[in-house]
Amino acid sequence: MTPETAYADLVRRAREEALLASCADLLEWDEETYMPKAGVAHRSEQRALLAGLLHERGTDPRYGELLDVLEGSELLQDPDAAEAVNVRWLRHEYEREKKLPRSLVEEGARVASLAYEAWIEAKENADYAAFRPWLERLVGLSRAEAEALGYADTPYDALLEEYEPGVRTADVAALFAVLQQELLALLGEVGGSSRKPQAKLLRRDFPVDRQRLFSEAVASALGFDFEGGRLDLAEHPFCTAVGPGDVRLTARYDSRSFPRGFFAVLHEMGHGLYEQGLDRAHFGLPMGEVVSLGMHESQSRLWENLVGRSRPFWRAFYPRTRAIFRDALHDVKLDDFHFAICAVRPGANRVEADEITYNLHIFIRFELERALIAGDLTAAELPGAWNDAYRRLLGVTPADDAEGVLQDSHWAAGLFGYFPAYTLGNVYAAQFLEAAERDVGDFAPAWGKGDFSGLLGWLRDNVHRHGRRWTSAELVRRATGAPPDPAPLITGLRRKYGELYAL
Amino acid sequence: MTPETAYADLVRRAREEALLASCADLLEWDEETYMPKAGVAHRSEQRALLAGLLHERGTDPRYGELLDVLEGSELLQDPDAAEAVNVRWLRHEYEREKKLPRSLVEEGARVASLAYEAWIEAKENADYAAFRPWLERLVGLSRAEAEALGYADTPYDALLEEYEPGVRTADVAALFAVLQQELLALLGEVGGSSRKPQAKLLRRDFPVDRQRLFSEAVASALGFDFEGGRLDLAEHPFCTAVGPGDVRLTARYDSRSFPRGFFAVLHEMGHGLYEQGLDRAHFGLPMGEVVSLGMHESQSRLWENLVGRSRPFWRAFYPRTRAIFRDALHDVKLDDFHFAICAVRPGANRVEADEITYNLHIFIRFELERALIAGDLTAAELPGAWNDAYRRLLGVTPADDAEGVLQDSHWAAGLFGYFPAYTLGNVYAAQFLEAAERDVGDFAPAWGKGDFSGLLGWLRDNVHRHGRRWTSAELVRRATGAPPDPAPLITGLRRKYGELYAL
Repeated sequence: MTPETAYADLVRRAREEALLASCADLLEWDEETYMPKAGVAHRSEQRALLAGLLHERGTDPRYGELLDVLEGSELLQDPDAAEAVNVRWLRHEYEREKKLPRSLVEEGARVASLAYEAWIEAKENADYAAFRPWLERLVGLSRAEAEALGYADTPYDALLEEYEPGVRTADVAALFAVLQQELLALLGEVGGSSRKPQAKLLRRDFPVDRQRLFSEAVASALGFDFEGGRLDLAEHPFCTAVGPGDVRLTARYDSRSFPRGFFAVLHEMGHGLYEQGLDRAHFGLPMGEVVSLGMHESQSRLWENLVGRSRPFWRAFYPRTRAIFRDALHDVKLDDFHFAICAVRPGANRVEADEITYNLHIFIRFELERALIAGDLTAAELPGAWNDAYRRLLGVTPADDAEGVLQDSHWAAGLFGYFPAYTLGNVYAAQFLEAAERDVGDFAPAWGKGDFSGLLGWLRDNVHRHGRRWTSAELVRRATGAPPDPAPLITGLRRKYGELYAL
Repeated sequence: MTPETAYADLVRRAREEALLASCADLLEWDEETYMPKAGVAHRSEQRALLAGLLHERGTDPRYGELLDVLEGSELLQDPDAAEAVNVRWLRHEYEREKKLPRSLVEEGARVASLAYEAWIEAKENADYAAFRPWLERLVGLSRAEAEALGYADTPYDALLEEYEPGVRTADVAALFAVLQQELLALLGEVGGSSRKPQAKLLRRDFPVDRQRLFSEAVASALGFDFEGGRLDLAEHPFCTAVGPGDVRLTARYDSRSFPRGFFAVLHEMGHGLYEQGLDRAHFGLPMGEVVSLGMHESQSRLWENLVGRSRPFWRAFYPRTRAIFRDALHDVKLDDFHFAICAVRPGANRVEADEITYNLHIFIRFELERALIAGDLTAAELPGAWNDAYRRLLGVTPADDAEGVLQDSHWAAGLFGYFPAYTLGNVYAAQFLEAAERDVGDFAPAWGKGDFSGLLGWLRDNVHRHGRRWTSAELVRRATGAPPDPAPLITGLRRKYGELYAL
């Protein structure tokens, strides 16, 4: 077997696996959008079957043989070329996958599907007790997974590695500690300002059908391709890339809150632009995949906040917004509207949080899920710990468990270790925007005219098209000239909120 | 290996295969409802992969070993018990599947997906030339399939066997010849009547959103369970059973034609009621599957016509209909509305055809697809042959190929041999209704009050719950006391249209 034939076989296998995984992705998308309620038991069996088949393929000893032939061969001379990138990551995944027993993988898929439906119902009824047994099973499965995978310091490391390869719990904790101090200081200053936005302007009547049309129009104007994508309704906004030419976003709208739906669409669209910017020629291989969840969230948070909550963005879009929502906005000026959508106000809800307090919500989840996985916190103690943390860090108490511990879907889907990605994303996003403006020039004039192609082009060139060529840290360094660093995020927030609140 | 352990293994394998097949079903449903256009190439690869995996599993020699142990064992003593039924059909499918090369199965799935998208576009543009190369490939694949499967008289037999096991082309041709003569005679009498319905009443303005709500309400009232089902929009109405608790219908609506959308919903709902009436405990096994396509169409055509175009049905629903479509129907009496929805008028469209001419559309397709498969007709000659047949049998000429040869999706999906099922379904349906009224009593009083549970209960007991226990012919005999027989269909049509047209 030559390295060339081994590589061809490896690619064929990896692609077939990705194709099968993409069937599972569609099942998941459908479960959260259109599946009838009574279909959940069957869906859970379908997902378990595919998870088992994927695991069987992913652990085929043939992978090991092929990788052995390739490693050290001339074919991988250039570490940044597709061959080396693909072999490196496929080895990583093969070793990881081999450590997981098939029964655990199948059980995880089965339980996640059922638990998700249970979470939806529990949230509707603000009934944590109904969800608790599911959470216990999910935590148990994640702990078993961490034990099977192994870790250096703490079981949480093993889970974090899935979402942000190469990053350790201790690194995240150190970064978050710095950020927390800075953000709380800034929050204090904002709270002391005499300038106050009129957030209630955004709680007038915004008809849902108009919000849907408007959101699609904006996503389209920013560069999301609807020939190869969709935007549907779901309980929780998310983005699923089924495959090349098929990237799907979801949203939920509330007629009494413009920001709730709109910024979630921008967020998911940011994910979607990343997926649409991957190199199709490499579909199914690490070179055609996103780097990490943190990198993914850097794209979503960038479009949601650094673009969508900027003044130039609204200079371009506010006239149309006011025309569409005339009854609600006829007497609202651009400056007042912009200040309202940037209003800083500690609250119980993460997705709707402002740019400053958002990260505090993440710190809380990071702390609690670490404790759950470490066995230092039980599912029974969780709601109390949640509410305590909210009082301590944000000074608010959730009205009930639906607004509290049940608000996010992540744990219900079995995703422990995911949350830090949001704040890592905020950090990377600020670095990207700073670097892009350094490379391309100030974006404000173009954005004010509704032209976002400069930023999108920069992201495609510097982030999207590289797939998993480098780790997230290395990608940040190559794109921006600096390693991951919270300074641009803090500087950006200080500048923007300093102006808005006249600090 | 005891027969008991062999049976347990067989059941486990068959169920897992059904679970995987149900993933493919969801991919197909999604392709025709929500998939973005640009996703088709990827979807076609997904479907080819699953078709290949299913074929690999379906031809596993282990099946043969298990069946060998079981056949002749005491476990199968009662031929009507689940064990015997399952073993009989699984043997049938195993032998059939073994004859098909995997490459042909994969290619069939891949081409069907791409051809379907090409058909949609060709139909939009009434551009048969754009679809012709696809049709040629599809016919070629079906001919190759027939050759691989083998047949007694004609290649079409091999295809028909898939949809209506045990029925031969010659049987169908003989039945259709009898029916054709009777239907043309009745059509002549109707044409000579001086009574004329006002079909134009149904081409007033029926807002689409109201049609959607109304259709769902009626389907629900007739017994379709929306907790375990859906009704979405699609280019072509169809029904997909993803699995227990997940049965999906699609429809299309036209604001200028009430019958186009409404009767298609009743039709698909009939399919859906059959699927929802199968025994869940047997999911994934022949005992929990529909008998044949003809039996499936008997259910759809029964609810669409024998119920939905009956006078008692409209006695129950017309007041609500008039309230919802007040602008269109405020001056229309029940009798005139009912006569209009039963109007007999030869036309170019099958789905919208009346109960008499509908079967003539089927005869045309049966004749043409037999000729295509036999190699007696080329794809190039097809549009001409189609239009000739329409002139000859129905006296109409399609306005273009969209209304002509491109009107149906079946061939575009690679389904050759399916069409006879509609007329077989009409035959069975008339027999079922006659038998059900003999067993339960005249349905008119209950239907007039909106109660259809008597009929649904009879169908569940006598048809749905039996799965594939018997062939379609035997099921008809057990349920009605007679073998398949066109007499009740002809008698029913003569009685109904004799009254309406005062023959």
